[in-house]
Amino acid sequence: MRVRGASTRTLWASTEPSGRTVVCVLDQTRLPHAVEELRLTSMEDAARAIATMQVRGAPLIGVTAAYGVALAAQDDSSDASLERAFAQLRATRPTAVNLAWALGEARAALAGAPASERAPRLFERAAQMAEQDVAACRAIATHGAPLLLAAKKGGRPLQILTHCNAGWLATIDWGTALAPIYELHARGVPLHVWVDETRPRNQGYLTAWELAEEGVPCTLIVDNAGGLLMQRGEIDLCIVGSDRTARNGDVCNKVGTYLKALAARDAGLPFYVALPWSTVDLATPDGASIPIEERGASEVAELPFASVRNPAFDVTPARLVTKLVTDRGVFEPSELGRNA
Amino acid sequence: MRVRGASTRTLWASTEPSGRTVVCVLDQTRLPHAVEELRLTSMEDAARAIATMQVRGAPLIGVTAAYGVALAAQDDSSDASLERAFAQLRATRPTAVNLAWALGEARAALAGAPASERAPRLFERAAQMAEQDVAACRAIATHGAPLLLAAKKGGRPLQILTHCNAGWLATIDWGTALAPIYELHARGVPLHVWVDETRPRNQGYLTAWELAEEGVPCTLIVDNAGGLLMQRGEIDLCIVGSDRTARNGDVCNKVGTYLKALAARDAGLPFYVALPWSTVDLATPDGASIPIEERGASEVAELPFASVRNPAFDVTPARLVTKLVTDRGVFEPSELGRNA
Repeated sequence: MRVRGASTRTLWASTEPSGRTVVCVLDQTRLPHAVEELRLTSMEDAARAIATMQVRGAPLIGVTAAYGVALAAQDDSSDASLERAFAQLRATRPTAVNLAWALGEARAALAGAPASERAPRLFERAAQMAEQDVAACRAIATHGAPLLLAAKKGGRPLQILTHCNAGWLATIDWGTALAPIYELHARGVPLHVWVDETRPRNQGYLTAWELAEEGVPCTLIVDNAGGLLMQRGEIDLCIVGSDRTARNGDVCNKVGTYLKALAARDAGLPFYVALPWSTVDLATPDGASIPIEERGASEVAELPFASVRNPAFDVTPARLVTKLVTDRGVFEPSELGRNA
Repeated sequence: MRVRGASTRTLWASTEPSGRTVVCVLDQTRLPHAVEELRLTSMEDAARAIATMQVRGAPLIGVTAAYGVALAAQDDSSDASLERAFAQLRATRPTAVNLAWALGEARAALAGAPASERAPRLFERAAQMAEQDVAACRAIATHGAPLLLAAKKGGRPLQILTHCNAGWLATIDWGTALAPIYELHARGVPLHVWVDETRPRNQGYLTAWELAEEGVPCTLIVDNAGGLLMQRGEIDLCIVGSDRTARNGDVCNKVGTYLKALAARDAGLPFYVALPWSTVDLATPDGASIPIEERGASEVAELPFASVRNPAFDVTPARLVTKLVTDRGVFEPSELGRNA
């Protein structure tokens, strides 16, 4: 995907004249108002970028964490340094399972490596994970496009609702939920995306911005509005991403996703969830077992007279999910555990 | 209800030394950050206050509109002046039926009145409507309190979720959805209110503010969060107001209400709607027939790269409403048409 004046990806590593590797990301807390690169030169930089949501989106968090371990090894490849990196990176965000998955992959890459080879191996593995993520998103695009197209009603552009940002900004490139949309747009299928604002952090702005960058028509709405639009026949389907998908097919995604799934069910519309396999957590039996991150009140409002709760995710039960669109193909949610 | 340093009501009329009547309201676009009185001295002032949501809430809009006609008659009691007032006030907000109801009551009060008596009669009728509204809200409190109390689970405060503002700020006093809450609080029942932020205009701030003014514990959440809290057993019931209730019991209320009703149904929780009888529109057969006001994009966001849709209401089907709590008693939604 393209960003004017910046990289075509959300994360890229480069080697400096000193021989040190630096990881660059787009600072998503500055988007969409400014396109700014952020240089991650240490594990602490990577952990801070994840915790403060300068990088966000389950797949991108995973790859950034893998690079975080590599950056730690570049500075100090001792066991103690790496264990500190694993612990600190793991603690940044509790819900998205890609983070734990990526750290597990990094740990596996270390097996048997002498200290001098740890950093190169970790950078290599992180780079592979980035490429795997791009390939997974391309596969999601291919698998998802026909499903979406099947919901098109004659005479008007395909009307799609999405919540939060599961586009190329949430991954290395292409995105998950938005990947089939970009695919259809590239094929010339007329379509239009309704973008939930996604309070409290307004990731809908990111979605609208990246869609606009790619020339895809879209309209921003408040999170409250999608139910009405579904009631009144203005939407053909919903598609969202996932931060963690349990063995039984329950989907944990940005808070408010569940409400849209209920509305889609009530209106008889398909509700699709797009995810790379790295977001599947077969060790978690169901959504009720997934820890829900609680974030700070200041993200919501600073009111002297009221307290604030700010849970960041909710669980959409498998029964409300029409299909899971993964890089391994399209599944009934109930089939997930059988496709490990 | 009390407001520090201001009236105990949201609207009050006073006669100036010149003999002219002036209508004062609290400017709700300044709340909760500042408590400011707004003086309405002409019909145009009243129409502007309604259209810009300086006054809001279906019952308060109705009474303000009635005073608007009276202010028009005070300046010019000719038929032409009054017809202009009816048309201009009617056009301010299309969805809340109390507006049309109040204008109908004002028109009826004019019957047979010579020009010199029109303004006094209209002011008298508007004052009666204000008193009727207070009495209706008191009756809603009485009828609703036992229903709410029945949902209390032992060992913790009653956990109530509400959307938008249907408290004393939305009425002349007491409120609709919040009236039974104030009643229970006054009786010493431990309770806590989860307050939806209610984008795009954040009327949840008004709700949190007025609850805090009355000493009722409350917590602000984003509109996306209520589903999760219901899923996880943190809420016992929902109660909201109504801007128009159709003959079949469908409820038109602030956009996003429908999503909370779906979540309540999915979690097996009661979903109550509190309304004065002036909000019932027996001439409208169902929710699909209710016009949904579309408001300006600037209420949502100003993004150079995306268009915005901003519907202000949605429809909660009668099948999702546990009970209608009115000043005439508690009804099954399906019974509404039989109690005209």
